[in-house]
Amino acid sequence: MSPLSYKSAGVDVRLASDALSCVRRFAAETHQPGVVGEIGDFAGLFNSALSNFGGLQDPVLVATTDGVGTKVLLAQLLERHDVVGRDVTHHCINDAAVLGAEPLFFLDYYATGRLEPDVYTTVVRAIADACAEYKCVLLGGETAEMPGVYADGVYDLAGFLVGVVEDRKRLGRHLVSAGDHLVGLPSNGLHTNGYTLARAICEQQAAAEGMTLREWLSTARVELAGSPGDALLATHRCYLHEIRALRSALAGDSGGKSGLHAVAHVTGGGWEGNIPRVLPDGHGVVVDTHAWQRPAIFGFLMRAGEISEEAAFETWNMGIGLVAIVAEDDLERALGAVEGSVRLGRVELTSWRRRVRFA
Amino acid sequence: MSPLSYKSAGVDVRLASDALSCVRRFAAETHQPGVVGEIGDFAGLFNSALSNFGGLQDPVLVATTDGVGTKVLLAQLLERHDVVGRDVTHHCINDAAVLGAEPLFFLDYYATGRLEPDVYTTVVRAIADACAEYKCVLLGGETAEMPGVYADGVYDLAGFLVGVVEDRKRLGRHLVSAGDHLVGLPSNGLHTNGYTLARAICEQQAAAEGMTLREWLSTARVELAGSPGDALLATHRCYLHEIRALRSALAGDSGGKSGLHAVAHVTGGGWEGNIPRVLPDGHGVVVDTHAWQRPAIFGFLMRAGEISEEAAFETWNMGIGLVAIVAEDDLERALGAVEGSVRLGRVELTSWRRRVRFA
Repeated sequence: MSPLSYKSAGVDVRLASDALSCVRRFAAETHQPGVVGEIGDFAGLFNSALSNFGGLQDPVLVATTDGVGTKVLLAQLLERHDVVGRDVTHHCINDAAVLGAEPLFFLDYYATGRLEPDVYTTVVRAIADACAEYKCVLLGGETAEMPGVYADGVYDLAGFLVGVVEDRKRLGRHLVSAGDHLVGLPSNGLHTNGYTLARAICEQQAAAEGMTLREWLSTARVELAGSPGDALLATHRCYLHEIRALRSALAGDSGGKSGLHAVAHVTGGGWEGNIPRVLPDGHGVVVDTHAWQRPAIFGFLMRAGEISEEAAFETWNMGIGLVAIVAEDDLERALGAVEGSVRLGRVELTSWRRRVRFA
Repeated sequence: MSPLSYKSAGVDVRLASDALSCVRRFAAETHQPGVVGEIGDFAGLFNSALSNFGGLQDPVLVATTDGVGTKVLLAQLLERHDVVGRDVTHHCINDAAVLGAEPLFFLDYYATGRLEPDVYTTVVRAIADACAEYKCVLLGGETAEMPGVYADGVYDLAGFLVGVVEDRKRLGRHLVSAGDHLVGLPSNGLHTNGYTLARAICEQQAAAEGMTLREWLSTARVELAGSPGDALLATHRCYLHEIRALRSALAGDSGGKSGLHAVAHVTGGGWEGNIPRVLPDGHGVVVDTHAWQRPAIFGFLMRAGEISEEAAFETWNMGIGLVAIVAEDDLERALGAVEGSVRLGRVELTSWRRRVRFA
């Protein structure tokens, strides 16, 4: 029986170590005064002295974790690893920002069958760039080689973000009531949700047209003004600046209540899966589906896969990545604060089982 | 072309939703006064007002992320999903605790090809139990169905933990100097590292003995006083109580410097991969490998796989899960504070390339 080593069993610790020192440099570029300790510690250290929280009086930590779903498979097929690095960071920043929080720090979990240093460093480079752009520290991460769980060339990616919000400035359903208005912020595509269905449609189409999936994804279509691959690999938009603009424009007079009540991030589960997360019990919303122009990819996928409107809205964001709920008096101010935002509808008292009604 | 739905494409949102409400109950059981907001929010909320940090003056947040490596494959094969739920939580608690931190909250990332509700709830039940035992809030998580990335029946699991430590009580290499002593705390097996090699050895043995891997793992061996499967699925020990005991016993007189300088968690990369993480540049350690009795699984795997001592110490913890570095004067006090702890060796000034030398 031949002797085994960790390397022959499928884990190359030295290769991992070289790539790790590279991504530690990327992480160091995002560091800010709040970071203490040294890279290589067993955990990342972030000083939470109030000065690092912008002088908040009653800081509440906001923690979230997300992945990018099976969009990783498209990124892997088309070798656009930068996209999913950005995506996972933006997704996490959004999930904290919808509660009114500013990002503090981020950690990534990257797991693969066999570490490909170029792919791995491209992903983490994109994460670090996104962190730097939004002044969020890349504080640490875990990189795992797991042959048998992941096939060669396949990786998964998860992010973990901690942000902070002043307690009395938290956004959420506790501020929402009937008569509030909905303001939609446009998405640029599927963001990071509904890719299993989208991929199944693409595979069916590719097979019907006698192409490989990769060929089909790379073939330009007039109705998309480009290729399906490009449309599907648009980066998940980060809405931090837009949410800040809404918070600022709707902050109210000194001491007054903010007119920005809640924000829903339209992700997995689509509209019905996410809007109710910011509604009080017994409330629903009526949405005017003609209020915005959908990115062409949605109609393209619906036609190709014969997907109903109802199913599409349960799976995809359909062109609205974020829904802000604002006081009636603040509607115009909100629309003026964010370019491209649209008036979507209203919050109503309802007894509907489905809480999002399309008109 | 047949119409596609998200369900036929491999994602059952309803099934996921039922299991999610179940694990939200588990999470709620771990909640403490610091938790604000509601379950179902886009992110978890934890009030960081100083009262929730135990009245710390200069609190430093300590954040870490970990997985359980390919131990998940053994847990899946032998249907011991509770083990990896415990493992990932203990691993994260340890990584924060070695810096002197107390755990605050935990989030999990669970990704699989097709959600099996029983498996998923077993994993999260174990995470919630571990969190409750160590007074850590299970604040949120992400559950992803990703057919194509994970095969049916395969899942991966990552954890994210945030803890807190008083800045001047941080442990680490900045406190370590030549002449300090090493105290080892026993492990109960491989914990969560080196499973790819261990599995390769087991597969080779099973094939040589004409058994399936599952049969072979379940067959008792005299030298293990049980089956290889049981030995390999021992839960990663949580050392929070032991680290607290060391901190307390070595706290020094009022205002004095603590005699506990640093703690290394012996995980991926084994001894050489972890002990140097708590050593100042130009320092190494000399370790007496006869100081402790190794759990039988290590010798068993080394003989079966013809693994050298050197390779074994680079891959596995070899029976010592945690190495505490203490002031010379505090050695006896440290040994008295933690049952089963052993005197391992000393920190020395060195110019060795390899910084852990076995004597």
